[in-house]
Amino acid sequence: MFTVKIPVRFVDCDGMGHVNNAVYHTYFEEGKREIFRLFTPDLSLDDFHVIVASTHCDYIHEISYGETVTVYTWVSTISRSSFDIDHAIADENGNWHARGRVTMIGYDYRRKEVVPLSDSIKAILDQHHQGPNGVPALRQLRSEGLSVSYS
Amino acid sequence: MFTVKIPVRFVDCDGMGHVNNAVYHTYFEEGKREIFRLFTPDLSLDDFHVIVASTHCDYIHEISYGETVTVYTWVSTISRSSFDIDHAIADENGNWHARGRVTMIGYDYRRKEVVPLSDSIKAILDQHHQGPNGVPALRQLRSEGLSVSYS
Amino acid sequence: MFTVKIPVRFVDCDGMGHVNNAVYHTYFEEGKREIFRLFTPDLSLDDFHVIVASTHCDYIHEISYGETVTVYTWVSTISRSSFDIDHAIADENGNWHARGRVTMIGYDYRRKEVVPLSDSIKAILDQHHQGPNGVPALRQLRSEGLSVSYS
Amino acid sequence: MFTVKIPVRFVDCDGMGHVNNAVYHTYFEEGKREIFRLFTPDLSLDDFHVIVASTHCDYIHEISYGETVTVYTWVSTISRSSFDIDHAIADENGNWHARGRVTMIGYDYRRKEVVPLSDSIKAILDQHHQGPNGVPALRQLRSEGLSVSYS
Repeated sequence: MFTVKIPVRFVDCDGMGHVNNAVYHTYFEEGKREIFRLFTPDLSLDDFHVIVASTHCDYIHEISYGETVTVYTWVSTISRSSFDIDHAIADENGNWHARGRVTMIGYDYRRKEVVPLSDSIKAILDQHHQGPNGVPALRQLRSEGLSVSYS
Repeated sequence: MFTVKIPVRFVDCDGMGHVNNAVYHTYFEEGKREIFRLFTPDLSLDDFHVIVASTHCDYIHEISYGETVTVYTWVSTISRSSFDIDHAIADENGNWHARGRVTMIGYDYRRKEVVPLSDSIKAILDQHHQGPNGVPALRQLRSEGLSVSYS
Repeated sequence: MFTVKIPVRFVDCDGMGHVNNAVYHTYFEEGKREIFRLFTPDLSLDDFHVIVASTHCDYIHEISYGETVTVYTWVSTISRSSFDIDHAIADENGNWHARGRVTMIGYDYRRKEVVPLSDSIKAILDQHHQGPNGVPALRQLRSEGLSVSYS
Repeated sequence: MFTVKIPVRFVDCDGMGHVNNAVYHTYFEEGKREIFRLFTPDLSLDDFHVIVASTHCDYIHEISYGETVTVYTWVSTISRSSFDIDHAIADENGNWHARGRVTMIGYDYRRKEVVPLSDSIKAILDQHHQGPNGVPALRQLRSEGLSVSYS
C-alpha cells in the first residue's frame, strides 16, 4: 500500500464550495506516483509505459479547501497486460471521503500498442495487495434497466 | 439525449500529449449542462440541487489538442433520489473515445442532505433514455480477486 | 486579430462562484491557437516552437458558468526572438471582462534554447497588430514602494 | 514572508512536459493561503473578503513532474483598498523558476463592491514586506510600440 498526503488547493474546489468530482481522479493519479516510478524511475514524462483504461470513483463525503487528505493506493488485480489499482481518500480524522478503482494497461506510446507487464513489475505489484483497514467497498455499476435506490 | 460539442483546450492535455484521464470527467460534466438546467434554469451556482455520487469512465482512444469532441448524454436509471447518467464521447469522424456513467443524487446543499427527485423532474428525465446508435457497452468493474485480461 | 469563442466550463469556476483567476490565462492560451498554428500547422504537441516568458492579466468583471466569452488576440510587439501578444475577453453583450499580455519566445524544446523568429513568421505576425475597438488599456505594474490606490 | 511547499502534480504538466503557465498562477494562489487566513481564519469559501485585480508571472525555468517547489509570498504595496503581493518560486536546489505579482482588492461578494482594508489587516500585512534573499526583479511590461529584445 502506498500513502500520499495531498494539500487541497483553492482551485480544486468548484462553485459548490467543495473539491470538484474530476479532481478526485487527479488525487488518485497523485496516489499512483510510486507505481509510475516502478515503470519510470525518474518520472520522466517522455518515458512512460502505462496508460489509463478505466477510472471509477465513489464519493462519500465532500472535501473542503484548507484540508490535507491522504490517498491510499493498492493493487487489487494483476493480469497479463493490465492491473487494477484501488484507491481510498481519508481526511485527517480518519473519515473516508472517496473510494475508487483505476485500470492501467502496459503501453508503448511510440508504437501506440498494449504491451504485457514484465514478470519483475508483476512481482513488485504483487507485494501491494493490502489496502487500509476499514476501507469501504466499491459500489458496483448498476446494470442497465435495473432500478435500485441509493437513498 | 443531449449533445454538446467541446473544443479540446491546450491545457486539457497532460505530459503524455493527450487529454488527461480526469479531464474526461470534466467533459462529462459539460455534457450534463442541460440536466443541471432542469434543476437550476439559470445555472446559478448558488442554487444547485444535485450532487455527484459516483463517476466511471472507460477510455477507448486518446483525444488530442486541436480536436472538437462531442459528448452524448442520456439517462439510464431513475430512482427515488438518484439517477444514472450515461455518457459517450465521439470525435468528428464518429469514432468513440470514451464511455461513462455518473450517478447523481438530489441534494440540499444548505441542509447537507439527500432529497427525493420531484415527479416533474423524473418525468423529464424519463424522456431522455435514448443513447446514440452504436455506442459501446460500459466495462464492468472487475470483482476483487478475479483475474480477467484486457488484452 | 484572432477571435475565439470559449464556453465557460463548470469547473472553470472556483469557490467564489466565478471563473478562477488562473483560468483566464487558460482562456488566453486558447486565444493563441491560430498563433500556435503559424509555428505548428497541425498543432502537434511534440512539434512546438514557442514558450511562454511572461503572462499578465487585469480582471475587470467576473465571468460566470453558462456564459460564452470571446477572446480577442493580437500582436503588440515583435522582437528578434520574442513577441508580445495582447488579449482581451468580452462577454456576449460586448462588456470587457479582462485584458492581458503574454510574451512568447521562439524556443527549441530539444536543445532547450531560445531561437530567433523567422522572417516569414514575423511578416505574418506583423499583419495582426490591430486589436478590437474600445479595448481598455493594460494596467501597469506598480513600482515597488510606490503606493497608488485602486479604489 | 510566507513559505509554502507544493508537490507538482502529474496533471500540472501540459503537452510540453512541463508545468503549464496558468498553473504557476495556481501555485501563487496556494502561496497566499496565510494571507487569505487573515481575512477568513477558517478559510471558509463562503466568507471570503478579497478578490484578484491583476496577476503577473515571469517564467525563468521550466518545472517538472516529481519536483516539489517552494512559493515565497510577501507584500510589496499596501493601499486604501488594495495591496500587491509578490511571489517567487524556487526548486529544492534554490534555483528560481518564476517571479510574480498579484494585486488583491478588499471586496464584499454579496454587495459586489470594493471595500477598504481595515487598519488591523494593514498592520499585519505591513509586517510581511520582506522577500527572500537574491530574488530576481520583476520584468516590466513593455510599452506598446516599444521594441526591446528578450534574447
